[in-house]
Amino acid sequence: MSEYRGYSGNSLKFLKENNAKVGDSVKITEELTYTGIVMPRFEHTDDNHITLKLKSGYNIGIEVQKIEKIEILTSEPIEKKSTPEIKSDSSLSKILLLSTGGTIASKIDYRTGAVTPALSAEDLNAAVPELAEMANIDAEVLFSEYSENLEPEHWKKIAEKLDSHSKSDYKGIVVAHGTDTMQYSAAFLSFALSGFPIPVVLVGSQRSSDRPSSDAALNLISAVRFIVESNTQGIFVVMHHNESDDLIAGHIGTRVRKNHTSKRGAFKTIGDDPAFLIFDKKIENNLKNEFFQQKEYSPKLNYDTHVALVKYHPGYDPKTIDYLIKSGCKAIIFEGTGLGHVGKTIYDEVKKANENGLFMGMTSQCIDGRVGMNVYESGRDLQEFGIIPLSDMIPETALVKAMWALGNTKDVDEMKKLMTENIASEFSD
Amino acid sequence: MSEYRGYSGNSLKFLKENNAKVGDSVKITEELTYTGIVMPRFEHTDDNHITLKLKSGYNIGIEVQKIEKIEILTSEPIEKKSTPEIKSDSSLSKILLLSTGGTIASKIDYRTGAVTPALSAEDLNAAVPELAEMANIDAEVLFSEYSENLEPEHWKKIAEKLDSHSKSDYKGIVVAHGTDTMQYSAAFLSFALSGFPIPVVLVGSQRSSDRPSSDAALNLISAVRFIVESNTQGIFVVMHHNESDDLIAGHIGTRVRKNHTSKRGAFKTIGDDPAFLIFDKKIENNLKNEFFQQKEYSPKLNYDTHVALVKYHPGYDPKTIDYLIKSGCKAIIFEGTGLGHVGKTIYDEVKKANENGLFMGMTSQCIDGRVGMNVYESGRDLQEFGIIPLSDMIPETALVKAMWALGNTKDVDEMKKLMTENIASEFSD
Repeated sequence: MSEYRGYSGNSLKFLKENNAKVGDSVKITEELTYTGIVMPRFEHTDDNHITLKLKSGYNIGIEVQKIEKIEILTSEPIEKKSTPEIKSDSSLSKILLLSTGGTIASKIDYRTGAVTPALSAEDLNAAVPELAEMANIDAEVLFSEYSENLEPEHWKKIAEKLDSHSKSDYKGIVVAHGTDTMQYSAAFLSFALSGFPIPVVLVGSQRSSDRPSSDAALNLISAVRFIVESNTQGIFVVMHHNESDDLIAGHIGTRVRKNHTSKRGAFKTIGDDPAFLIFDKKIENNLKNEFFQQKEYSPKLNYDTHVALVKYHPGYDPKTIDYLIKSGCKAIIFEGTGLGHVGKTIYDEVKKANENGLFMGMTSQCIDGRVGMNVYESGRDLQEFGIIPLSDMIPETALVKAMWALGNTKDVDEMKKLMTENIASEFSD
Repeated sequence: MSEYRGYSGNSLKFLKENNAKVGDSVKITEELTYTGIVMPRFEHTDDNHITLKLKSGYNIGIEVQKIEKIEILTSEPIEKKSTPEIKSDSSLSKILLLSTGGTIASKIDYRTGAVTPALSAEDLNAAVPELAEMANIDAEVLFSEYSENLEPEHWKKIAEKLDSHSKSDYKGIVVAHGTDTMQYSAAFLSFALSGFPIPVVLVGSQRSSDRPSSDAALNLISAVRFIVESNTQGIFVVMHHNESDDLIAGHIGTRVRKNHTSKRGAFKTIGDDPAFLIFDKKIENNLKNEFFQQKEYSPKLNYDTHVALVKYHPGYDPKTIDYLIKSGCKAIIFEGTGLGHVGKTIYDEVKKANENGLFMGMTSQCIDGRVGMNVYESGRDLQEFGIIPLSDMIPETALVKAMWALGNTKDVDEMKKLMTENIASEFSD
């Protein structure tokens, strides 16, 4: 690995001139004086900052131009600390932490520069010492993938793992997960594990822990606090609420969407406030209904990916629907325009899909609001051609639900029943 | 037509019991007393209200349960009023109002129950008397379609019509348009009419004028005021800003999205406040840059629809990309996850699309925020496979821009240049 990994331009020049390199323990003086270890940088940002890991475990960025002095304390590779002994406190709840990968589950080994899964119980304890004061945590690495590479087969593996703990003495389970497809996984778990007896929290981070403003630690702490204190059931996503440094939201797993590419507060509950707000000292519960319609735990872990998401737009090629029918697709979730429309140019293909026994459900590309297919003639026509309005289910959740429903029934009427039934708060009321 | 069109349940029962029907002139007493004409209802809402058109031209909904008395004044079909004479005031600006259809352009003929385009100058003057005090308006019906049925060929017809007035003495042009695909049309006009010398405003309504809370009149008035007073150039969408009854927003045509299925304030500028806020007495201008990068008017009205929008998700079938290549598709706009990713499962197909000369551009299904394809390995891989990051251009705008760019160049390098160049404020800075 390079001794200057991730550094370029000004910051690289600065390190070289001062004989400092990644892994060195240094003392930097600018307005204040900081002692810490020079960290590699893994995200292309500016070239004006040095990232320093402080003894507290937190990282800060220091602007090169403002540095008055840098002193190398030790340039030896830091020896691996002996695994700290985790004290189990029998008064605390037991929590399972599963890692599937993503930014939050990554730790930078500053000696090799590699990003590696960090979530052994020991690593966690060392990285986020607050956790051990809140719960006794068992940690397990399920896989280590950025979430854009997670597929329905991964959803199922997570579900199977959770299912195997349905009768354990865990107070709840935290699933560390990449943010890119977190909402898809959350939706699948919500349907597959209907009635799951303990809360499941998906947690991720938008900024890796080598970045000064990383949200990884606080999201994780809040996920554990949520399980310990919320006294609820269901599948939730716990992430920063907005640009505030200390306000965390707990979203219903079927109603949440990643609505910004990079902000820490990227995740939003569609059409409502988040079900939970997690402050430093208290948890505010705004959950209006039980998460699961049926209290009884009834896992159904199968899926079938023969489902297409069709976002309609002017100029949409009708022949693509023909192709989908021929390719063996068994369900289409439309992201229609407005209240749930598609243009007349694809009416014939919609009818054909219906004749071929495909399930067709309508959501809106507006994302927020309900489809209303009785308002205009086109909506009524489309219902006549077999399209089922899916109220305010968000498109991504409807897609996942269709894959799940298809995996658990081959009967079209049963499919229609499953798709329009409120199972896991996918309809807002 | 039914004499009770649109009425059901309680309201239907009420009308029948009182021998009142659609088209009757009545006097209704509840807390207050109203005189007006019973209107048909065209949207399935509740069955507890009668819609009454008052003499002022505004419609109100009256709750059946609260009605103390209904008196039929006249049950004869009202005679068509003679066309009121429009006084032209030479001190006012000249404005062209083009109607393409949609809810805003509809008038209910209460005698036949049919919804018909209302936007002759005479009809408008009668329906929205405020307009004549603000401008001298020429009105023309271009076509009468709900916007889910508008196709790129309609975009081009609108553009040609606007182009034909590029040297006219109009202060600006208002285009009445359905809301479903308004953002797609606005984007096309923005690219096709780069540098258009006078402002163009697309305006619609979320609630038809036979509904008590219709936004049609105020949106139209505000569109005209915007043209008269804003002193700007560009393609804008003018609609209610939020749930306020009197605050209207003017959005950049390439940065706007319909983000709610039914609310009046459904349209939002992505990632920013609207460029203009239109109050009763003033217009607030928050436009940061010139709308068009090039001042000179250079119309390019062609398009090519061989473009696909691919919203990536777990379980996406790679074979669909193969199909798109085989079907003659020349460009793919990806709605990737997060910062602009797709899963490894479709990497081979992405490479194949590149080898086949397809243009590929990346946007994010997060909608808000910029793609950042240098941050993670996957983003860098995808760029190597030929995918061009499209910064914070919203997916629908990127799709339309690709259709437009393909229609105006067949050269892939020129296509890449056009797609990454800021032409009509499609990139936020």
